[in-house]
Amino acid sequence: MIDLYTFTTPNGRKASVMLEEVELPYNVHKINITKQEQFTPEYIAINPNSKIPAIVDQDTGITVFESGAILIYLAEKTGKLLPTDQKGRFQVLEWLMFQMGGVGPMFGQLNHFKKFASEKIPYAIERYEKETLRIYGVLDKQLADHEFISGDYSIADVATYPWVAVYEMQGLTLDNHPNLKRWVETVQQRPAVQRGMNVP
Amino acid sequence: MIDLYTFTTPNGRKASVMLEEVELPYNVHKINITKQEQFTPEYIAINPNSKIPAIVDQDTGITVFESGAILIYLAEKTGKLLPTDQKGRFQVLEWLMFQMGGVGPMFGQLNHFKKFASEKIPYAIERYEKETLRIYGVLDKQLADHEFISGDYSIADVATYPWVAVYEMQGLTLDNHPNLKRWVETVQQRPAVQRGMNVP
Repeated sequence: MIDLYTFTTPNGRKASVMLEEVELPYNVHKINITKQEQFTPEYIAINPNSKIPAIVDQDTGITVFESGAILIYLAEKTGKLLPTDQKGRFQVLEWLMFQMGGVGPMFGQLNHFKKFASEKIPYAIERYEKETLRIYGVLDKQLADHEFISGDYSIADVATYPWVAVYEMQGLTLDNHPNLKRWVETVQQRPAVQRGMNVP
Repeated sequence: MIDLYTFTTPNGRKASVMLEEVELPYNVHKINITKQEQFTPEYIAINPNSKIPAIVDQDTGITVFESGAILIYLAEKTGKLLPTDQKGRFQVLEWLMFQMGGVGPMFGQLNHFKKFASEKIPYAIERYEKETLRIYGVLDKQLADHEFISGDYSIADVATYPWVAVYEMQGLTLDNHPNLKRWVETVQQRPAVQRGMNVP
């Protein structure tokens, strides 16, 4: 049994979608970050960085924080969604890292400056919108001749989907990136994705 | 032999420090990002995201982009700087992901708004300075009872060091984070780190 500590954000949804995909039983613990619940001593003992998601695997006693590490952990535990041949494995891991270091942080900054910042700062909105659209372009080009981001459906797709799926909330369109749009529509039809995107 | 495509940035230095640490022979190919060399068709064929670093391993024919994936690849190739027991391995991988998703992107935004932005935007400078100092605090607390970030010296340290080492260039001090300061001073004494930080 896995304990999942999460909230209703794209990073949280990566973990719940993955748990649904690999069909591991899990308990959901909602950490309401709008109520600062990530800063309790109990939660800091699980993740010293006070971010969601995190998991505790009751089978092994291992705690893992950071969504990217959780995806690798669950993939290796179940033998699913991460190739075992060296070349295929690193093609997935590099795109997972692209999500961790690029897609997530940059789309997140766009969210902040478009929706949450106490000042409207055109320079910052333009900076992150431009970078988000550049990343859409990189993904669109990759998906022009790949059904999924790298080989078969993998943790690279699980990591990236929740961040691209919120494009309307970010005031963006996928109409100029038809391959990315096709990929979003394909991934969102997966029953595991639909279940995972409703957690917590 | 490894071909390394890199430039004089913290992300580039992660890869060159790692190659020095694991003592693999490598050729350096300088990709001058101030001259847009990351956008040539030749380089996009290596990294479709047009970022440095990237490597091509002539022994296997495998290309890897994204510094975090490169570190895992080189650690596994050489059996160095990444524990093989499951618990120790994921403790390193979660801190590597913390670097990839937090340290790098956030310190990078601070660089942008402090040094490169065409407008001085106090809100953005304050936002990223506050987040950088919060991350310093997380690392300082972790290093209070750990000599290195997670267990022995590992790829988590290799990934994090080049970003913390530039604190003076970012107009910051480590004086309020003595454990982090002690760690920086320890890591910078490693000959492999000194060599790697001078590439290219």
